[in-house]
Amino acid sequence: MRFFVMTLFPDIINSVISDSILKRAIDNNVIEIHVYNIRDYSKNKHKKVDDYPYGGGAGMVMTPQPIIDTYENIKRDYDLSDDHKVIYMSPKGSTFDQKSAKRLSNSKDIVILCGHYEGVDQRVIDMIVDEEISIGDYILTGGELASMVIIDSVSRLIPGVLGSEDSFMDESFENNLLEYPQYTRPEDFCGYKVPEVLLSGNHKKIEEWRNERSLEITKERRKDLYYKYCNNLQDEV
Amino acid sequence: MRFFVMTLFPDIINSVISDSILKRAIDNNVIEIHVYNIRDYSKNKHKKVDDYPYGGGAGMVMTPQPIIDTYENIKRDYDLSDDHKVIYMSPKGSTFDQKSAKRLSNSKDIVILCGHYEGVDQRVIDMIVDEEISIGDYILTGGELASMVIIDSVSRLIPGVLGSEDSFMDESFENNLLEYPQYTRPEDFCGYKVPEVLLSGNHKKIEEWRNERSLEITKERRKDLYYKYCNNLQDEV
Repeated sequence: MRFFVMTLFPDIINSVISDSILKRAIDNNVIEIHVYNIRDYSKNKHKKVDDYPYGGGAGMVMTPQPIIDTYENIKRDYDLSDDHKVIYMSPKGSTFDQKSAKRLSNSKDIVILCGHYEGVDQRVIDMIVDEEISIGDYILTGGELASMVIIDSVSRLIPGVLGSEDSFMDESFENNLLEYPQYTRPEDFCGYKVPEVLLSGNHKKIEEWRNERSLEITKERRKDLYYKYCNNLQDEV
Repeated sequence: MRFFVMTLFPDIINSVISDSILKRAIDNNVIEIHVYNIRDYSKNKHKKVDDYPYGGGAGMVMTPQPIIDTYENIKRDYDLSDDHKVIYMSPKGSTFDQKSAKRLSNSKDIVILCGHYEGVDQRVIDMIVDEEISIGDYILTGGELASMVIIDSVSRLIPGVLGSEDSFMDESFENNLLEYPQYTRPEDFCGYKVPEVLLSGNHKKIEEWRNERSLEITKERRKDLYYKYCNNLQDEV
């Protein structure tokens, strides 16, 4: 799988990649991540990439030309597959979740556009963007961290990216229940003990205990997920 | 404001910081970010930081001792304020949003614990964690990107962190409406034109147009936000 990131801050992306778990997947040629600096493609003599918004308002808007030209260069440099997706990280996008991660993990080529300032000119979105995606209902200084969140969560679903020690926590958000509490050695830490049942070796009881805790935590913290869980149960009956 | 990050992958955090917009805020002493490597505090002779989960199951769980000792060292090194918060980045936490960012931006000291593998021993959470926070309903390889999302979104609300060119997009998620489309120069880009109204100079009409677009986009993409928006309107009547 190949990711292409269009950004004004390529160093952020490059440094995260080189220090993360994804590095091994890149070294093993399981995934590729190519980072393009939008500023390099600006035809403005001062390499300007933004300008004031039409209609007034605070902040600057990223101009179309440098972004479109970056995209055209990526297409040419890497002969993108016909069904490649262009994603724009934006607070007004649809909300990213584990289901979206699964869906995107079936793509061959994903191009991610990171916005900055007040975002990009709408014509960029109209011309090249397939999906606007938001990683949550909060504002970030730019799309770089958001793009890394997408790359990280999608990549880890690709066979060969995670080692066995990294495990697969896909249970969460799969059945709409949050995960039960985990315990490891020592049995007694400063007087805080591991629940008896987990030491019992009784797999049925352990399973029951974990399921009860999952239900309890989800009910308490995420009424929305708990509701979905209960609805699914009823559907199954 | 001071952030302290407890992690097994300090390089990710350090490299993101040094390349991001936050760098300037750190250089100007508006915020501080201190990164602690949990592995440095392991008393195990092989510097081990994880072990198998009690009760069975895939993956490894981070053991209590190295984390608790890291935390104790931070408290000692930086004389943490009494009301400092310890946050654990976890998919089972409550969902982070712009309101949480605002709330946290009033803190003096925030300690963030990044999990890896199957997460941390529950006793760590019971002993030192004030809040479990999730940045969204998806699984990441670790808590590092999530911690940077928190730091980025909280920091940008602190006066002096953003320059004027970075602007404040706080409108989104404030009134529960997504942002209207933005346009900048040129007026005509490859035949794609800026909407007439934005060139009209008629501020009232521009305001109306933008508000209509916001409503339209929110209604189409985020029924949940649109519903909140409508409810708020009714409350105001």
